[in-house]
Amino acid sequence: MSINLAFGITMQLKYLLALILMLSFFKVSAGTVEDQIKIRQSAYSLMGWNTTKIKSQIIDHPETYNKDQVIAATEVIFAIANSGLLDLYGAGTHQGTGWKSTRLKLDYFQKQEEVKEIDARLVKASIELKASANLGDLAVIKEQFGKLGAACKSCHDLIRIRD
Amino acid sequence: MSINLAFGITMQLKYLLALILMLSFFKVSAGTVEDQIKIRQSAYSLMGWNTTKIKSQIIDHPETYNKDQVIAATEVIFAIANSGLLDLYGAGTHQGTGWKSTRLKLDYFQKQEEVKEIDARLVKASIELKASANLGDLAVIKEQFGKLGAACKSCHDLIRIRD
Repeated sequence: MSINLAFGITMQLKYLLALILMLSFFKVSAGTVEDQIKIRQSAYSLMGWNTTKIKSQIIDHPETYNKDQVIAATEVIFAIANSGLLDLYGAGTHQGTGWKSTRLKLDYFQKQEEVKEIDARLVKASIELKASANLGDLAVIKEQFGKLGAACKSCHDLIRIRD
Repeated sequence: MSINLAFGITMQLKYLLALILMLSFFKVSAGTVEDQIKIRQSAYSLMGWNTTKIKSQIIDHPETYNKDQVIAATEVIFAIANSGLLDLYGAGTHQGTGWKSTRLKLDYFQKQEEVKEIDARLVKASIELKASANLGDLAVIKEQFGKLGAACKSCHDLIRIRD
């Protein structure tokens, strides 16, 4: 009996420790509501800077095309898309101010299946865009860049408040 | 004479066009002073999020170590370090507000040799950190992570106003 009791307490302690660890990890990796909003706004701003560079060199001014710069820009987009962005959308983060007020709709939390489908599409598009940049064929890069833009737009249409 | 004159005008036009292109590209890639500050603040915020994840899994809570997550975090840091951050430090950007007031010292523009040396060290450290994350040896990752932190600190000490 006393052995069973001790074993029971040990197991409960283990679960408790696991829970504390999980919570402390969540706090570290995702942060406060304000931090989550701030970091996702930073992520999309940086994606924007890099998509602007690609658009400029591939579409608007192809005569300025610089293969290494386009590869570097696609690596940023891929790395951000693949970094666990959805961890930055914790409960309650449809309201609040990071660098500025969030535009996240409450719908985000009710449309998780569509969100995850779009997220997977974004990651896939970013991988293919990076591969096309390494090949260096402007027509192919442009096509893949279009697919990335489509994934971005799907998400904006679904869960972002219009300006 | 008329051929030489025509040739002269053609060459001048070419230089003029090249200059316009260069300026328009600069405008697109770097943006206004406010945009440059905003994007570099975004870049460092995102680096901070990812270094926090690595620190948590490698140093503070190694029992939560997840190889794929650490690799993904190092890819963000590498991609950002390698994305031409120095383009975001145009003339006049030691004053102004992006997401918040910049902390860049005027010294940045007078200490270009040291800045470039540190920038090269940051890129190198980020490449080696990514490589160590792929190997998956925590002691090696920790060592490389320390080198990355040292490069960050060198730059803060040189050109960032203390809080």
